[in-house]
Amino acid sequence: MDRAEFFHELDKLKRSRVALSSSSTEERNEALNLISEGLLRDKEGIFSQNRKDLENARGKLAESVMKRLLFDEKKLESSIKGIRDVMRLPDPIGKVLEKRELNKNLVLSRISFPIGTIGMIFESRPDALIQIVSLAIKSGNALVLKGGKEAECTNRALFASIKNALSTSSLGSDYLIQIESHEDVDRILKLDRDIDLLIPRGSNAFVKRIMENSNIPVLGHADGVCTVYVDKDADLDKALEIAIDSKVDYPAACNAAECLLVCWDVAPEFLPAFKKRADAEGIVLHVDDECRKYIDGIPLKKEDEGREYLSLEMNVLVVNDVMEAVRYITEYGSGHTDSIVTENDNTWHYFEKSTDSADVFRNASTRFADGFRFGLGAEVGISTGKIHARGPVGLMGLTSYKWILEGDGDTVGPYSRGEKEFHHRELV
Amino acid sequence: MDRAEFFHELDKLKRSRVALSSSSTEERNEALNLISEGLLRDKEGIFSQNRKDLENARGKLAESVMKRLLFDEKKLESSIKGIRDVMRLPDPIGKVLEKRELNKNLVLSRISFPIGTIGMIFESRPDALIQIVSLAIKSGNALVLKGGKEAECTNRALFASIKNALSTSSLGSDYLIQIESHEDVDRILKLDRDIDLLIPRGSNAFVKRIMENSNIPVLGHADGVCTVYVDKDADLDKALEIAIDSKVDYPAACNAAECLLVCWDVAPEFLPAFKKRADAEGIVLHVDDECRKYIDGIPLKKEDEGREYLSLEMNVLVVNDVMEAVRYITEYGSGHTDSIVTENDNTWHYFEKSTDSADVFRNASTRFADGFRFGLGAEVGISTGKIHARGPVGLMGLTSYKWILEGDGDTVGPYSRGEKEFHHRELV
Repeated sequence: MDRAEFFHELDKLKRSRVALSSSSTEERNEALNLISEGLLRDKEGIFSQNRKDLENARGKLAESVMKRLLFDEKKLESSIKGIRDVMRLPDPIGKVLEKRELNKNLVLSRISFPIGTIGMIFESRPDALIQIVSLAIKSGNALVLKGGKEAECTNRALFASIKNALSTSSLGSDYLIQIESHEDVDRILKLDRDIDLLIPRGSNAFVKRIMENSNIPVLGHADGVCTVYVDKDADLDKALEIAIDSKVDYPAACNAAECLLVCWDVAPEFLPAFKKRADAEGIVLHVDDECRKYIDGIPLKKEDEGREYLSLEMNVLVVNDVMEAVRYITEYGSGHTDSIVTENDNTWHYFEKSTDSADVFRNASTRFADGFRFGLGAEVGISTGKIHARGPVGLMGLTSYKWILEGDGDTVGPYSRGEKEFHHRELV
Repeated sequence: MDRAEFFHELDKLKRSRVALSSSSTEERNEALNLISEGLLRDKEGIFSQNRKDLENARGKLAESVMKRLLFDEKKLESSIKGIRDVMRLPDPIGKVLEKRELNKNLVLSRISFPIGTIGMIFESRPDALIQIVSLAIKSGNALVLKGGKEAECTNRALFASIKNALSTSSLGSDYLIQIESHEDVDRILKLDRDIDLLIPRGSNAFVKRIMENSNIPVLGHADGVCTVYVDKDADLDKALEIAIDSKVDYPAACNAAECLLVCWDVAPEFLPAFKKRADAEGIVLHVDDECRKYIDGIPLKKEDEGREYLSLEMNVLVVNDVMEAVRYITEYGSGHTDSIVTENDNTWHYFEKSTDSADVFRNASTRFADGFRFGLGAEVGISTGKIHARGPVGLMGLTSYKWILEGDGDTVGPYSRGEKEFHHRELV
């Protein structure tokens, strides 16, 4: 898109935003329904464009990336199911979050409201495009989105199908813009008056680059350095299953554990048992000096502390107690998800209060850190920021709110002069 | 402070943060109590330092700024009352915001938690320092604060008294740092790993400069361009009182109206009545061509549209209907507070849904946009951003949250393999 074309599209988006943000649940669900019907109608064309992307990528991309790039009947099916799930979610907009009578006939309400315009920039997976569009529409937000270069043909076909389906809806389709070039991305990073929130999805380096190059608030996480701490009062059977599951269930996920801390008290018993299971699962262990009294492993290098392996590799260290575990997590963790295995309630309470991470778990795998598992209905992303939303973010993370005050000709003067007083009676 | 000294203080702050964030309501209230006792004990020294600031400022600062700079027995009294009010507010930390059973013996809670470290940069008023410190402590946040140059002696005395009082408390006083130089400010703007939120208080230019020069999230508002729209179905008596009060009650406030829009239907009747009252109150009117059919005024210049006068000046324009009013507000307002005067419910609903401002009022003065009036207990600031907090921000605006998951050795593997399913039962 050239500059003039982009700003023309942006003007249309800004005009259509008002109708979208004030639309009813039914109107937004109807838009989602039209999209799912359109995708089914247009599927052959989409699959054929996807085959082009796959052909272009052959030999250039890793097998795992190729798998993510594939968009076939099965991916379409799960995407359609995803849209229907989002349709069934309660409307995040128009919820009364607070309601208070300030004085007779002067009622204040805090109402959830769309954030406005979301800028979503993501790498590869074409099914992410469908998910993102449906979350944005459900939450009444306009969307500027940029997909990965590798999926260009597929994304273009998907977007055309979506735009076409929406053109018959009461809200139109002007609130969606697809951009493709790096110039377009650089352009939106500067639009802090028009884009209210950026959501980048991709590698750490990618998310960091976005954060550093824009004044627009960013929702996302750069690192997922999660830790499991096996306390002296741990049930060691539970500890073993949790430590293994936290790594093995999906080693490349941001909520996979990269580090295992073991209390010295239980190290002699726990470490050999863990090593046996780790070997069976093919986990490469980077171990500190104290560990090596009990098990073999690659000597842990200073520069590997706090590293996100994203593979079957893990650091293992022996610590004195829960205090040292918390200090280690504070220093080397990324504030994503940390779990303690202990049967001791006092130890748990210390850990829970002192660990400043988005997700703090007891006797559970770090892999539970996920919007679906948390029961949020849909996951927009996972945030390691502490402003606005933290940890797994559901639809409510795409909302802001408005304060609505309904009076009867009320002026502040009488309150300023002390003739009237607020009584502040909670109504909700 | 030189660089080494600053980072030494920052290290101490980071260490003491953990105890502060996990402290009890009683510990934090006790700290606040010690501060109020200390200020009373040290008051003569503080007043004498304030006299120095006043002497230094004489002739250099406007009378209104001198008034804000003064810290006397009366200001101390209201500051002490402020601390006691904050002590009585419910603890914003440790609130259970959500609680859900994911499966048997696997319980998820979302708990409010301090944001971490707040960077507060403000101009002049020394009483603001006391208020900010008490809000930070109540919400369990560490604080790096910088006061105005004009109040340097007073702020130094206040801060010394506070630090001294806290040194006897169980939590110590390391979580508070005062900085004074521009170099220190430039330093903290870059500390996006250590400072979680910036709250600047001061002029628009000042807040904008902070926003543009840091990657740390900023809570605040740059502009307060508020509008009153008098609809064709307005009760014109109410409209008159609201339009006048929205300007006159405190013309320099961010929630004062800078613009009055009048529906052409009622313009012939309303405008002359408004003009009479405006003249009596000494309000200078900038009026558009249509207005001038009914009243005199300075012809409104294009560049004055959307201007924040912060004084007894106001734009007045005639519009066709509520739709045009909303479009005008969207284009020239700052998304702070906008009020419609109308007896027509449909018109109100259109206005309420279509106006994307933090505060949207009906038949009430824009001056009600205030944390105390809203019943928030204390006001941290007013936000025109849509992320995290919007409009008047109370203590909850200084909190984030954590997700706490308590299991019994639960692993994700069985769920990944489809052997187990979540049942997601709401507990709160």
